[in-house]
Amino acid sequence: MKFIPVKGTRDFYPESMRLRNWITETWRRVSLRNGFEEYDAPIFEYLDLFTVKSGHEIAEQLFSFTDRGGRNLAIRPEITPSLARMINAKINSLPRPVKWFSLPRLCRAENPQKGRLREFFQWNIDIIGVESELADAECILVAVDALREMGLGADDVEVRIGSRPLTMAMLKAAGVPPESFEEVLGVLDNRPKISEKEFQDLATKVGLDGKQIDAIRVFQDVSDIEALEALAKGEKHFSGCQKDVDRISMLWRQLEDFGIADYCGLDMRVVRGLAYYTGIVYEVFGRGESLRAVAGGGRYDNLLELLGGPKIAATGFGMGDVVLEILLREKSCVPDLGRPVDLFVIDGEDGAMPVVTAVVGRLRAAGVAAEFSYKRQGVGKQLKEANRQGARAAAIVRADNVTVKDMATGRQQDRRLDEFLADPLAGLSDRR
Amino acid sequence: MKFIPVKGTRDFYPESMRLRNWITETWRRVSLRNGFEEYDAPIFEYLDLFTVKSGHEIAEQLFSFTDRGGRNLAIRPEITPSLARMINAKINSLPRPVKWFSLPRLCRAENPQKGRLREFFQWNIDIIGVESELADAECILVAVDALREMGLGADDVEVRIGSRPLTMAMLKAAGVPPESFEEVLGVLDNRPKISEKEFQDLATKVGLDGKQIDAIRVFQDVSDIEALEALAKGEKHFSGCQKDVDRISMLWRQLEDFGIADYCGLDMRVVRGLAYYTGIVYEVFGRGESLRAVAGGGRYDNLLELLGGPKIAATGFGMGDVVLEILLREKSCVPDLGRPVDLFVIDGEDGAMPVVTAVVGRLRAAGVAAEFSYKRQGVGKQLKEANRQGARAAAIVRADNVTVKDMATGRQQDRRLDEFLADPLAGLSDRR
Repeated sequence: MKFIPVKGTRDFYPESMRLRNWITETWRRVSLRNGFEEYDAPIFEYLDLFTVKSGHEIAEQLFSFTDRGGRNLAIRPEITPSLARMINAKINSLPRPVKWFSLPRLCRAENPQKGRLREFFQWNIDIIGVESELADAECILVAVDALREMGLGADDVEVRIGSRPLTMAMLKAAGVPPESFEEVLGVLDNRPKISEKEFQDLATKVGLDGKQIDAIRVFQDVSDIEALEALAKGEKHFSGCQKDVDRISMLWRQLEDFGIADYCGLDMRVVRGLAYYTGIVYEVFGRGESLRAVAGGGRYDNLLELLGGPKIAATGFGMGDVVLEILLREKSCVPDLGRPVDLFVIDGEDGAMPVVTAVVGRLRAAGVAAEFSYKRQGVGKQLKEANRQGARAAAIVRADNVTVKDMATGRQQDRRLDEFLADPLAGLSDRR
Repeated sequence: MKFIPVKGTRDFYPESMRLRNWITETWRRVSLRNGFEEYDAPIFEYLDLFTVKSGHEIAEQLFSFTDRGGRNLAIRPEITPSLARMINAKINSLPRPVKWFSLPRLCRAENPQKGRLREFFQWNIDIIGVESELADAECILVAVDALREMGLGADDVEVRIGSRPLTMAMLKAAGVPPESFEEVLGVLDNRPKISEKEFQDLATKVGLDGKQIDAIRVFQDVSDIEALEALAKGEKHFSGCQKDVDRISMLWRQLEDFGIADYCGLDMRVVRGLAYYTGIVYEVFGRGESLRAVAGGGRYDNLLELLGGPKIAATGFGMGDVVLEILLREKSCVPDLGRPVDLFVIDGEDGAMPVVTAVVGRLRAAGVAAEFSYKRQGVGKQLKEANRQGARAAAIVRADNVTVKDMATGRQQDRRLDEFLADPLAGLSDRR
């Protein structure tokens, strides 16, 4: 009988696990220094929680099941509904603003393809209880802080910023009927990924005429804040949403103050697929890449209310590990991650194995990463094994003395056993 | 509409998440310094992988489902089958011994009760490819190293060590028919948790007579290595398994060499519930506790072969977070875990908010944990917020100077903005 992993899932052997940990630890460190606190929720929830408010696409991609008690459950495809549920449950006792992050494992029954798997990890950053666009700016800062920390510069990645309310105002002014908005937003969401011809065909299919498609293009193709402000002044139908234009302008100034405007660009083609966004939206892409977004987010001021809570402002983003890893490889930002072995302990004479065991026990209890060989073999072979494991040094022990060999320099020093144990890493060169 | 978490699952609000992270990070750090490498597998696998070899109990507790492609899948109730699958898939290219650990999230459809939930985290330590009992001893060392690191001493916890082959030999000699072994082992597994009267009743129920029950008691109640060795010499039926007695004696010497014998005790009542154990088995308990085991493991030399691979020696253990957390609380070993805010940045005069934003952006990019207030309010209120968040210091910024207030000592120093940014934490007392 042969067993294989399920299509679209990954086995994390130690080498890929080190990279996954490097990514998640960077996300965690950056979150903490940006003032966010970590939370998590169960891997499965009541099915309803995920179907009530998410877009059609997510509801179709659920792994759902019924437990022995007849409950309809599903593995989480995103963590935002669980976040909203948790916030709502303690809404009166949580100090605001709530600045939380999470690193959930998520599952979606999608067709696996490049950058899209059935199981993945997603960094989530959310700020609850702040209406000011400064919260949106801070979320974008956190995303950029992590990308920069991983070695991706403003030449490598770009945060493309759009606006849901301005997009809606434009559609309304163009005479698109409100009942088609969700379908039309789906087509707009696809525009950056397809050719203009394909866009034209799709838009026609959902009932848009040539004039409407032109209006969409004029709006979506504004290239900067000044052009957007000019358009808003010139087009009467934007007069009702001057505050949304002002929000984008304010956001832009804050991104400049935060020192990350070089990573950002205005892009009204960004609308985001999910149904629950209400304000500023954004996606992060590799520059010059056709790959899907590495992160996406925005404001969702209605979601907590939709899930049984009060109306409360909320904004945040998610960044997935699958597209990020592809991008990091393309930009040569994946570091060389080795095993952290400090000392490889070797039996240097017959009968020294109990001493090896005792030394290993003492070293590990003192916080030193210590390894040894299970095979009783010559010192030369064990030194080879020490080298294969990337050990910083080898300690060849006898009844009461130790020869410490620095694996980087080859330098050896003889020490008394008790002296060695008192300061086992003394005089060694740094880990490679 | 009100949503709640599913029975037996946990929401991790920031405070409980900090504790969970403290536990898992300790497990990870201890694993690495003991020479283990981390791996992980998907959260769901083909159902068959879990039903083929596990005990009856685990198969009954699966959350299983069928995906759109008609595959029968299940959320993992343990990670050992996935480990065996992964090892088997690369058996010829993996350098041996394989020393791996994992920190999987697991789900079991159990009835929730104290120490037992439907979703939990479990530390797994495994050594593949080593027949010597030194590998069993090393696994026990790793378990003790983590418990000690968390503050649990030899007075708090005990590793109780038994032997599957010796238990089987005893049952065989007592005339228990092999087809009842699994059922009888289940009863033996329960013995430490129930009264002797209840044990007598259960044993009778599975068909054991008074003489057989007495034989079990004589064997299980040996209290140390010497008594076991004496029993093995005296009872003819143990003559076929002298090597298993020798293994236990050797193991005991290695535990002494590793410096952890004070944490360990011989206990032939330990048999472990799972069907696949083949050698030395052990469980970790709080001393003087009636609580279930905090960890359990042993040798499982046949499992990889059962799952389609070659016959290869294997040993390891699992430690769950739920029982561990209860034990840590009972022994007052849960640390005070705070938020890591280095600097809380305050606007010290009108119009200073862009400076606050710029300073926060610079500090975070330099790796400093920096917070600020979204509300424009007086310096006093913001200082209060800095205090509530446990910040190390507050930085009150103006156009070109900063007052840094050490929150622990109350000491203030005025600095030029550029000097402050060059070394923002200079002169501050350590974090509490």
